[in-house]
Amino acid sequence: MNIISNYAKSKDIQITCKLVGSVAKKTSLVGKADIDIFMAFPLDYSEEDLKKYGLEFGKYCIDTVGGISEKRYASHPYITGLINGFEIDFVPCYNINDTTYLKSAVDRTILHTNYIQSHMTSDETDEVLLLKKFMTCVNTYGANYKVSGFSGYLCELLILKYHTFENVIENAANKWKNQLKIDLENYGTCNNYHDALIVIDPVDKNRNVAAALSIQKFSEFIVASRNYLKNPSINYFQDKTITTTPSELVKLFKQRGSYCYVLSCNVPDVPSDVIYPQVNKTLKSLEKVSGIYDFSLLESGYYIDSSNVAHIILEYDVASLSNVKIHHGPLIYDSKNSDNFRNKYPNAYIHNNKWISLSNRKYITVEDMIKNILLEENMSILKLGKNIKEEVLKDYSFEKMEVFINNTNDENLNNIFLYLHPNYRLEH
Amino acid sequence: MNIISNYAKSKDIQITCKLVGSVAKKTSLVGKADIDIFMAFPLDYSEEDLKKYGLEFGKYCIDTVGGISEKRYASHPYITGLINGFEIDFVPCYNINDTTYLKSAVDRTILHTNYIQSHMTSDETDEVLLLKKFMTCVNTYGANYKVSGFSGYLCELLILKYHTFENVIENAANKWKNQLKIDLENYGTCNNYHDALIVIDPVDKNRNVAAALSIQKFSEFIVASRNYLKNPSINYFQDKTITTTPSELVKLFKQRGSYCYVLSCNVPDVPSDVIYPQVNKTLKSLEKVSGIYDFSLLESGYYIDSSNVAHIILEYDVASLSNVKIHHGPLIYDSKNSDNFRNKYPNAYIHNNKWISLSNRKYITVEDMIKNILLEENMSILKLGKNIKEEVLKDYSFEKMEVFINNTNDENLNNIFLYLHPNYRLEH
Repeated sequence: MNIISNYAKSKDIQITCKLVGSVAKKTSLVGKADIDIFMAFPLDYSEEDLKKYGLEFGKYCIDTVGGISEKRYASHPYITGLINGFEIDFVPCYNINDTTYLKSAVDRTILHTNYIQSHMTSDETDEVLLLKKFMTCVNTYGANYKVSGFSGYLCELLILKYHTFENVIENAANKWKNQLKIDLENYGTCNNYHDALIVIDPVDKNRNVAAALSIQKFSEFIVASRNYLKNPSINYFQDKTITTTPSELVKLFKQRGSYCYVLSCNVPDVPSDVIYPQVNKTLKSLEKVSGIYDFSLLESGYYIDSSNVAHIILEYDVASLSNVKIHHGPLIYDSKNSDNFRNKYPNAYIHNNKWISLSNRKYITVEDMIKNILLEENMSILKLGKNIKEEVLKDYSFEKMEVFINNTNDENLNNIFLYLHPNYRLEH
Repeated sequence: MNIISNYAKSKDIQITCKLVGSVAKKTSLVGKADIDIFMAFPLDYSEEDLKKYGLEFGKYCIDTVGGISEKRYASHPYITGLINGFEIDFVPCYNINDTTYLKSAVDRTILHTNYIQSHMTSDETDEVLLLKKFMTCVNTYGANYKVSGFSGYLCELLILKYHTFENVIENAANKWKNQLKIDLENYGTCNNYHDALIVIDPVDKNRNVAAALSIQKFSEFIVASRNYLKNPSINYFQDKTITTTPSELVKLFKQRGSYCYVLSCNVPDVPSDVIYPQVNKTLKSLEKVSGIYDFSLLESGYYIDSSNVAHIILEYDVASLSNVKIHHGPLIYDSKNSDNFRNKYPNAYIHNNKWISLSNRKYITVEDMIKNILLEENMSILKLGKNIKEEVLKDYSFEKMEVFINNTNDENLNNIFLYLHPNYRLEH
């Protein structure tokens, strides 16, 4: 920070450097430290200048200490340096004292850091570490789309509210309900939000810190808290390992007697917050189209493996249907439309006061349906993400679950195990 | 009638004998003549006396002319005589001039006969014959529960309204809509009814003559009328024969690719208006219970053959389902019920803010379901008619349609053909 401040001063530019994030707040878990150095520029600098000087100052600093630099892109570009084995982000932002002057999302980070530093006791930072570790091990930690769980800042605010890890857990287990409201600075803006959890940002009364938290992860944390209180073991602060075998998994699917398939395709190496929503959208669309064709789903799921292959699991109640289905026609009183319907469907017949016809189903089996709707000429019925569509057109596989299980690696077996045991990580 | 009148006079009882019904109105089809002789007693006779004298006078008359007599029961008992090859009913009733004094349904019959005799021209009686014959051949004639179609009196009133057969057909084809209102005597009581067809009885402003007409048969008559106008052939006044073979029927079911079964049981020799509603009720109940167990029906139907065997046809989209199904549990916020649910279903998991469990299905196949719900100990889930329940407990058969077709007689084959071609008799 001194290197940058002096360099900027030598160029007659007034900036304030600040260490922000979990390291600055002393709430970073071992091995999870994000070192972020923010360079705060006066408000009269253009965004253009901010980017230019930000990258220049960061690179100067990294070069000076003999690190390796790499440009990255978030809401605006920044530079990352590998220095003495640590990854350090150098991020330009505006120097603001309150969020009225907010120009981009990163500007808020300094205010968050200041707030926690000025409000949190050192005992409480230890409690944050416990909470974050617990959250990580029960898989509710992380505001990214993949998890849609609790952010680090949200964990810190929960500790400011409840003071201890134990107290957060007890409140979650016994008192938390949908639309729980926490408003540390008493702004009175909670009623503007209808999320599962509403935590008004102490530095911005018009922001719900828990907006990205899904109701699923909110529920999972509540249940994990109850599980912990029943058996408050140190295991809750350690990863839970999975041991499974293909034959165990095949047996479990046999017991379900379902008709389960895995649709797999490559995904490009883009940020997870870009690709996960696309895979989710693809799954939702496949579910909807399955319903249109009367294939009733028992369960479904998806994940992306470490080789950037997305796997969509589709588990059906039935695998094949009758060749025909009821097709509803016009009222028999409507003579013109009745004629049209009867001409189109010569076997039309009357049900009460309406025409009905048994028309041929487009798809009799799940496999036929999936393979056909994934052809380019039929794909318009689906809503796939842009990247997924491109990749599926290149190549995909659609296998029966049993075939998939018997031809895959441990990582995929573990994911299939988690599909079959959705609560596995909530109880240690 | 002279024999009875004189006999009654000799006993000092004042009765009026009257020939009623279609024979009296000259609207009876060849081979379908119901000869009904009504004996109208003064209103001050008790119902007890009416029954006693009615049976006595009828029997006296039948014996006198050397016929064979048999007691029968409708709303009250009457006697039938086989005389010179004709079946003649002798029915006691009250002598009323308007329906204010109505004591039983049969009392109205004399008023109906009087009304038609005094309002219908002889040309119009010919038109009634055409209409009744057409109705018979397109299977919309008969107010009994089995057909739920147009009664003879209703046909007569339609001719009084429209004057000719052709005119009835043209109006039905082009103008009839749901809740069509006909009020020959302008009583203004049509709006009290919401049936498909509303025809106020000219002798009773508080009665809809078409109350027993189903919307199905109302629709079928409209469509048959349109078919006739497109091709006004004499065929519409002749029965349409069915020629089919087991192999043709099996082929048609193969094309549908459905999972079709026939449930058959004996029915007692009781009036059709007693047993048909029971078979219908049984079918509706089987449909409902199939839905409860997630077996989706494509189509269904029933009939009773001439050997008094009821056949219920159940045609499904699927024959078997996964072993498990989604079972919805309490909200996760509800800690007590959550505990109960998790204890009961150890594999319960979270979906958004609710508990879900995959629980075992009671029945995986249609055959297993039907055979089980027809066991005495499980039967309470069904609503069967009293007679059907008794017969099913004695014996029933449940066969795949293909097996049924390959082991049955022409009458059943014809009924299966009609099941597959519900509009067959609407077009000649």
